[in-house]
Amino acid sequence: MNRFEPNLRIPGPTSLPDAVREAGARQMVNHRGPEFAILQNRIVDRLKAAFKTQNDVLILTAAGTGGLEAAIVNFLSPGDKVLSVTIGAFGDRFAKIATTYGAEVTKVASEWGKAADTVKVREALEAGGGWKAVLLTQNETSTAVTNPIAELAAIVKAAAPDALIIVDAISGLGAVPFETDAWDLDVVVSGSQKAWMVAPGLCFVSVSPRAWQAAAVAKMPRFYFDLAAHKTSAESGQTPWTPAVAVMFQLDVALDLIEQETLPEIWKRHAAVGAAVRAGLTTLGFKLLADPAYASDAVTGAWVPEGIEWKTFNGKLRKLGLVVAGGQGALKGKIFRIGHLGHVTVPAILNAIAVLEQTMIELDQPVQPGAAVAAAQVAALKSLQLAK
Amino acid sequence: MNRFEPNLRIPGPTSLPDAVREAGARQMVNHRGPEFAILQNRIVDRLKAAFKTQNDVLILTAAGTGGLEAAIVNFLSPGDKVLSVTIGAFGDRFAKIATTYGAEVTKVASEWGKAADTVKVREALEAGGGWKAVLLTQNETSTAVTNPIAELAAIVKAAAPDALIIVDAISGLGAVPFETDAWDLDVVVSGSQKAWMVAPGLCFVSVSPRAWQAAAVAKMPRFYFDLAAHKTSAESGQTPWTPAVAVMFQLDVALDLIEQETLPEIWKRHAAVGAAVRAGLTTLGFKLLADPAYASDAVTGAWVPEGIEWKTFNGKLRKLGLVVAGGQGALKGKIFRIGHLGHVTVPAILNAIAVLEQTMIELDQPVQPGAAVAAAQVAALKSLQLAK
Repeated sequence: MNRFEPNLRIPGPTSLPDAVREAGARQMVNHRGPEFAILQNRIVDRLKAAFKTQNDVLILTAAGTGGLEAAIVNFLSPGDKVLSVTIGAFGDRFAKIATTYGAEVTKVASEWGKAADTVKVREALEAGGGWKAVLLTQNETSTAVTNPIAELAAIVKAAAPDALIIVDAISGLGAVPFETDAWDLDVVVSGSQKAWMVAPGLCFVSVSPRAWQAAAVAKMPRFYFDLAAHKTSAESGQTPWTPAVAVMFQLDVALDLIEQETLPEIWKRHAAVGAAVRAGLTTLGFKLLADPAYASDAVTGAWVPEGIEWKTFNGKLRKLGLVVAGGQGALKGKIFRIGHLGHVTVPAILNAIAVLEQTMIELDQPVQPGAAVAAAQVAALKSLQLAK
Repeated sequence: MNRFEPNLRIPGPTSLPDAVREAGARQMVNHRGPEFAILQNRIVDRLKAAFKTQNDVLILTAAGTGGLEAAIVNFLSPGDKVLSVTIGAFGDRFAKIATTYGAEVTKVASEWGKAADTVKVREALEAGGGWKAVLLTQNETSTAVTNPIAELAAIVKAAAPDALIIVDAISGLGAVPFETDAWDLDVVVSGSQKAWMVAPGLCFVSVSPRAWQAAAVAKMPRFYFDLAAHKTSAESGQTPWTPAVAVMFQLDVALDLIEQETLPEIWKRHAAVGAAVRAGLTTLGFKLLADPAYASDAVTGAWVPEGIEWKTFNGKLRKLGLVVAGGQGALKGKIFRIGHLGHVTVPAILNAIAVLEQTMIELDQPVQPGAAVAAAQVAALKSLQLAK
């Protein structure tokens, strides 16, 4: 029997295309030399294109959480009023970073599975005053919900025009439509191991001129994540501290692939795989976590069926080569999440649905063989048809 | 004519052995799954062996500077008295991080090229009181000097027994003898792209029980670099934020190679290449930066000959395939540095000396063809002979 590579369906690190993988095996170069400067400048130009921004985009050697920390400590001072719009574990984390560094944080939280409540956000902004920043999550990986960032940003602009809009777009940017400049977003964070199809180790932060003005007077302490130091170094194609060179090599190749496929086609592909996963899971009888109106096309969360242990369920999936993610926080052991971002195709999703179908049959669940795979395939084709 | 790979002789990122390079091309895995936990635990065990410690060793996704920040913010509070023993750019950086987060820093600085002045360190410690920490640099990459850490640690223990000893061992650990526990060091930092022969992106921090006690009451803000969170995650073979998985794959292979060669043999090899570089450069008429008594066996700095522009000099080296590092801070354009740590052999150093010899001849310097290569070879053989 053939051995297949496991189907890595977690919402990051995502599976790497071969050409990207292989670039991780290149020999090191001098990170202060001309070859590296050319590489970095070429990467930054294409990151800007994908962020859809003319703002600076800076590259940090860190996990996405490091990018979130940079997005707080560079622009705020202790005591600053911050509105945290949180819809899950990563929104809560973002708020906690701001609190840790002394910001006065007010939370507008949604029930997990729901998008941000635009009415409550407007009310909270109008009830207070002197907001220095609003923290938003584009794609909440813990609940598989994508927020309407354009709409939320417009509300902030109207109700608190002086507040910086700071967006965690770690797991959604590059997978679903996103417009940094058209939506007038001040600070946007993304991470290499998500839709970028690259190993973890790098994150990217875009900074608007307005945000740079805030940085000039912001008093939270920062050194490793000092973005002004990163901007100065970037002017000569460098980073202030030694960058994750091998991950940069991978990113360079991944950006080639993204450029070749084009963003609109990538978004269509993600819409199709998102539709396929939701149709397949629903046909199998799974209850989805996310409000259907805001279901993420990058990740899907579903409840583990009642009466079935998460460990048993996950063990069976793993035996059939499917690697999914568990729940986070209060949802640990209760839900599972399927990542479908970055290097993902409809056939890869059909494989995942087939494994889930087989597992449900083994667990004596009322499942009609083949139906889920068929439903997923049809949903994907319909999505692609509509997108034409 | 054959094309050779450039001889990358900068003090990090260092050149990678083929098996290490290739591990960077592996497909991603679930960083919350059992395979990753096994990998991380195996890595941590061998890092502890190389650090020569029973203390916790935690893995952070960051450049070495991130490790230095972690070594400050986890153990100190604003207003804490810190003695910074600095002998170059990286010692100054370490002090600046402490100042940035509000420590009250007193510097004992050496002239660049000298090791720490043990008398001045003792006097400074005795002159003050209430020292919370002493910051030491093991191997100062900017000046190519290795400090006598055992001796310095003993002085701190005698004069300020309550002070934590925090050591930047980024560029020396794994290249030259180092004993975390025997020297009673509380916090030690190293970085993947140095003697470990791995791409940049990871750093390692060892933490003594005494340092953990300090961490429990330390008030400097921290989130991404929170070592307590790393310790908690490490207990289940994880990291709190997504780790640089591809660099972990490389580190796993590099630790195999280190285990096979054994630390004593690695130290002998570094002593030999250090002796070879110094003999070759001296024979070519270069003036070395470092005090010979404390010359580093991981990196060597030498003055660019008078009347020769750094850019011209470096351009000629590059054309012959030799990549060296320039000077830092006040030494920019005045010195060059040759890295000889990690994956380095005597023949690789002879290649570098040959290129330097050829360049000096092209620049009409009074050089006897072949003499420098011969001197380097003899010095290496002598060093290896003595070490037997």
